Amino acid sequence: MAGNTFGDSFKITTFGESHGAAIGVIVDGVTPGVDMDEEYIQLQMDRRKPGQSSVTTPRKENDLVHIVSGIYEGRTTGTPLCLMLYNQDMKPEAYRDIQHSFRPGHADFTYLQKYGIRDHRGSGRASGRETAARVAGGAVARKLLERRGVQVLAYTKEIGGIACRTFDEEAIEHNAVRACDPSAAAQMIRKVEQLAAAGDSCGGIVECRIRGVAPGLGEPVFDKLDAELAKAMLSIGAVKGIEFGSGFAAASMLGSENNDGMDAAGFVSNHSGGILGGISTGQDIVFRIAVKPTSSISLPQRTVNVHGDEQQIRTIGRHDPCICPRIVPVVEAMACLVLEDQYKRQAAMRG
Amino acid sequence: MAGNTFGDSFKITTFGESHGAAIGVIVDGVTPGVDMDEEYIQLQMDRRKPGQSSVTTPRKENDLVHIVSGIYEGRTTGTPLCLMLYNQDMKPEAYRDIQHSFRPGHADFTYLQKYGIRDHRGSGRASGRETAARVAGGAVARKLLERRGVQVLAYTKEIGGIACRTFDEEAIEHNAVRACDPSAAAQMIRKVEQLAAAGDSCGGIVECRIRGVAPGLGEPVFDKLDAELAKAMLSIGAVKGIEFGSGFAAASMLGSENNDGMDAAGFVSNHSGGILGGISTGQDIVFRIAVKPTSSISLPQRTVNVHGDEQQIRTIGRHDPCICPRIVPVVEAMACLVLEDQYKRQAAMRG
Amino acid sequence: MAGNTFGDSFKITTFGESHGAAIGVIVDGVTPGVDMDEEYIQLQMDRRKPGQSSVTTPRKENDLVHIVSGIYEGRTTGTPLCLMLYNQDMKPEAYRDIQHSFRPGHADFTYLQKYGIRDHRGSGRASGRETAARVAGGAVARKLLERRGVQVLAYTKEIGGIACRTFDEEAIEHNAVRACDPSAAAQMIRKVEQLAAAGDSCGGIVECRIRGVAPGLGEPVFDKLDAELAKAMLSIGAVKGIEFGSGFAAASMLGSENNDGMDAAGFVSNHSGGILGGISTGQDIVFRIAVKPTSSISLPQRTVNVHGDEQQIRTIGRHDPCICPRIVPVVEAMACLVLEDQYKRQAAMRG
Amino acid sequence: MAGNTFGDSFKITTFGESHGAAIGVIVDGVTPGVDMDEEYIQLQMDRRKPGQSSVTTPRKENDLVHIVSGIYEGRTTGTPLCLMLYNQDMKPEAYRDIQHSFRPGHADFTYLQKYGIRDHRGSGRASGRETAARVAGGAVARKLLERRGVQVLAYTKEIGGIACRTFDEEAIEHNAVRACDPSAAAQMIRKVEQLAAAGDSCGGIVECRIRGVAPGLGEPVFDKLDAELAKAMLSIGAVKGIEFGSGFAAASMLGSENNDGMDAAGFVSNHSGGILGGISTGQDIVFRIAVKPTSSISLPQRTVNVHGDEQQIRTIGRHDPCICPRIVPVVEAMACLVLEDQYKRQAAMRG
Repeated sequence: MAGNTFGDSFKITTFGESHGAAIGVIVDGVTPGVDMDEEYIQLQMDRRKPGQSSVTTPRKENDLVHIVSGIYEGRTTGTPLCLMLYNQDMKPEAYRDIQHSFRPGHADFTYLQKYGIRDHRGSGRASGRETAARVAGGAVARKLLERRGVQVLAYTKEIGGIACRTFDEEAIEHNAVRACDPSAAAQMIRKVEQLAAAGDSCGGIVECRIRGVAPGLGEPVFDKLDAELAKAMLSIGAVKGIEFGSGFAAASMLGSENNDGMDAAGFVSNHSGGILGGISTGQDIVFRIAVKPTSSISLPQRTVNVHGDEQQIRTIGRHDPCICPRIVPVVEAMACLVLEDQYKRQAAMRG
Repeated sequence: MAGNTFGDSFKITTFGESHGAAIGVIVDGVTPGVDMDEEYIQLQMDRRKPGQSSVTTPRKENDLVHIVSGIYEGRTTGTPLCLMLYNQDMKPEAYRDIQHSFRPGHADFTYLQKYGIRDHRGSGRASGRETAARVAGGAVARKLLERRGVQVLAYTKEIGGIACRTFDEEAIEHNAVRACDPSAAAQMIRKVEQLAAAGDSCGGIVECRIRGVAPGLGEPVFDKLDAELAKAMLSIGAVKGIEFGSGFAAASMLGSENNDGMDAAGFVSNHSGGILGGISTGQDIVFRIAVKPTSSISLPQRTVNVHGDEQQIRTIGRHDPCICPRIVPVVEAMACLVLEDQYKRQAAMRG
Repeated sequence: MAGNTFGDSFKITTFGESHGAAIGVIVDGVTPGVDMDEEYIQLQMDRRKPGQSSVTTPRKENDLVHIVSGIYEGRTTGTPLCLMLYNQDMKPEAYRDIQHSFRPGHADFTYLQKYGIRDHRGSGRASGRETAARVAGGAVARKLLERRGVQVLAYTKEIGGIACRTFDEEAIEHNAVRACDPSAAAQMIRKVEQLAAAGDSCGGIVECRIRGVAPGLGEPVFDKLDAELAKAMLSIGAVKGIEFGSGFAAASMLGSENNDGMDAAGFVSNHSGGILGGISTGQDIVFRIAVKPTSSISLPQRTVNVHGDEQQIRTIGRHDPCICPRIVPVVEAMACLVLEDQYKRQAAMRG
Repeated sequence: MAGNTFGDSFKITTFGESHGAAIGVIVDGVTPGVDMDEEYIQLQMDRRKPGQSSVTTPRKENDLVHIVSGIYEGRTTGTPLCLMLYNQDMKPEAYRDIQHSFRPGHADFTYLQKYGIRDHRGSGRASGRETAARVAGGAVARKLLERRGVQVLAYTKEIGGIACRTFDEEAIEHNAVRACDPSAAAQMIRKVEQLAAAGDSCGGIVECRIRGVAPGLGEPVFDKLDAELAKAMLSIGAVKGIEFGSGFAAASMLGSENNDGMDAAGFVSNHSGGILGGISTGQDIVFRIAVKPTSSISLPQRTVNVHGDEQQIRTIGRHDPCICPRIVPVVEAMACLVLEDQYKRQAAMRG
């Protein structure tokens, strides 16, 4: 199959190009009878939308979500939701110069290799804009998870080598980089602004913490909970790695250090990141993702055009010098989709 | 669905418990008319089987593969292959003491939470033994990939904090830890032997390099090539993280450093790990996985039994003090499965 | 999964309710680089749309199709097509009286049992209007099949007990019931008009003939070509049966009569309907479906309301007294979807 | 995908050829903690096995089922069951003469067209023997359905033009053709014996009645309960048609006749066959299938060999002159698989 669908018992299908008429998402497998409205979904859209601060792209998209189907008198009916986001601030002419060139770090070359045809306007389907549809679909999953007492929270842990040293949950939505440490956040913002001014970009690390998950979620063998989350996260454009619990640090730990013992009150540590054998333990699920520096920079770079001619390229457009703050709601959305799907798969197994 | 199947157009389904009669795999979507025999598959089984050296478990399983179906006169017929591996050296009595206890780092607790019933003998389905079936299925994929000129190679990069400093491909299969640096390998082996003697275990890092992949493989959006590989790798029991190309290091790099420029001869670097926008570039695909220290150790650990009573536990059994060398063929098998599937999905898209 | 998606390597997902803002379809797995435009798709929409003649519902829906995504400069890009059909002539007030009643022959009772909530306006998702989205998606498949030389043709074979006696292909689109025999068509139309005037309805038989299919299509065992076509056809609301080739008549034939012999020129007969062992023979694929009389009739009927109170009901609305002529393009659309999917699965198997 | 898997949340994958070492089935998605043993499954195997009477093939297969995995201490564990059936009475030499010929009515020609290679021994995977694996998997579903109060019953309704006139449920398993009318059964047996003696074969009609199904089962739109049952039944080799409730007779009925009214006690008739809008009403589900005459007959028939040379062929082997009695348990097995899957999908939707 063609890979525009995610999930099994609860699933989304996204469609639409960055500079087409609209992007959107179909959400299928929704529990019937649940309150759902555009306002709730819009809250998540607003967290992802561009133009929020000095460290995000100035492209203006209100990203107003429209519910086309699946809701009757304010409640889900069990039939598919179609959520539409009409594109507004399109500037396809900004892409004219690079129509026949391969931008370094972008999917320009690989899409052309795959399809033999390419919608060059704003990367078409490979655009980060596609993730707006995921956030809309993820908001539906989030609503369903709220009823289960599950809370999904992501935040920036590190940007440009500057790491958070404290965890201040309240601060996250009150700084432009969504860092969990307000003083590190201030440093990060300065760094990103400097890089933006210099025409460059930087990467970072985003952490996700999921609370309230019942033990027993996740399928053994191939569809382990961590395997599904890994797929979900690596399906986000700029993500180059993921680790759960002690993660890569576990590679240099001893078994006696890394194992999580138990006492009468439960687990005494959480090196596993809340998942053992691919199944949730009931502890917090914790993972971190590596976010690469934004590929679009205005510094000159070496590349070739479709004819193989060498050239210099500058990606003059409207881009985020660091994508971490805007990737946070996308990470949460994808995590919500994985979890709601696993809850439904669990219900099928037991049902 | 229940999660014992992996792949879409080319797929495997594994079954069987560690201490049941047999484990096995169904391989479906096999190209017809391809030479295939037990000897070819056995080569891969022998690389994974236990008892190979001082650093692996002394459990003796010849892991002889039996082709039950799908082959006629030495060639694939396009119908499903069933490959069986009968269990031999089972010692269920070794698990009697821990029948009602939760071993730290194991899936004992989570399986019981999920299913309300648990086959405690050797972890049942959560056993590393299940991966033997994957290696058998992966060997079929490997054979199909050979015809496409694709070569999948994994090796130990680091164990217990000791990292390889050179890349000597010839050395990999000639040292007990499958490291790509023979002198580091010697140190690793000493370290693992010392830890084993002390009743402890350690983790490591395994790298995988895939050569000869055509550009254009991988589905955009959710089923990106890196997303599928991430799911495949995180579905292996001891794996706690994955990174592609520059990976977590990209988090502290600049866009101008991390972007891979192009000249008339192609890409001038490979920070992307051979994948852009989820689609292969035609360069080597490179990723690394974090392997946690083996959970089964004979040092005493704190845990509880199914009644919640606190107790000390020692996992006396036959276990690998470091699983890296035996995880190498499993990593290759899973990578082969992902790639053959993507080639077939590509054919469907264009067909 | 929730059942709004059809197909495997080539697939559609439909969404939207009869009296919501719009209905639509996502088409995924489309071959890239193929000419595609709204005019081509509209041709099929116009064949299904209501209000075409005296024997169809007077509801006025222009069913103008809008391509939202997946097309660039008049060609498919390999990314999902979203096709939207905005609802226009909605009269939800017509359904107010029956809001709490179960119309005989309709899904009112079963939807409420399933979901515990029901969008009563025009049957919501259970409406025949949902099939407009299928016709849109099927038109995309039809375009791809044209390149393969495949032609899918359906027509009315019998209505209200009046059967066609000749096969005049040219006549099909030139009579209001889409019958393959113009003189039978005239009788059928009279009969349907009489029944409509009497507040009643009738059923019929629709036949489908598919020419130009390559031999070898269809998967063995469960996803046989006839099994997939049967599922496709029975998924259309009013269809109560299907038969291939000699069909139910085969039940009283001898093996020596029913078997299709071969000579040097190929098969000498086609009792099999072009499918042997679930795989196409290369002959015409022929099947017939049983279409039940339209459930909505204005004659009084016995029913109950949601509280279990007995009542009489008359379905005063805008309905087709016989759905055969409008089911013809839906049958063709579903057949196109099955075939294009099978071609792509074939490509994957061989690829 | 390759089509050897059936079901979604509850599913089976079959493998193995008629004259290979074994055939078998993997059953995945099984509810954990349910009593299950070989004896229970064997009961169903014995109903399908060859050599039961004068009207079935004399091939001797005890069809002893072996549970390889998924059961622990007599109960299901939630992990996949592997059920193996070793082939015993193979006579591949019986097929030597027809190795290069296409038997009329068989899949010989189409398999070769599809795969370019063919296991001619007993039709390989296209053999009716594959259905033994379905019966084994279906028995697991049957056990789960018993807990839900669902009973699936199939029986012969007509053979060789001789139809049952009464419905005597007790008689079904006590006559060699599994007809529901003992006096018709006696006539049917005589007719089949005569045809067998003459080297010919005949078809028939099998009806299935499912009791105790909860209302609300079945997915709207594409995965309607009747659509899934239709696919299931048409995936059985000799089946050429299916009809639900009034079926093809509905084509000549009026809406006022065919609609099922309701009163305070529920539906007053069941022309729908227990399914409205693709969802169960809670009434009995009733459908009939058309079974073609067995293709293997010993009368001479015209055919060609793989080189296109015309020849006469006589299928001298061990075949059923009428397959109806042995198709009955296969129909039940497939119906059980569909229903258990739908129950689990229902649980996921609500869960």
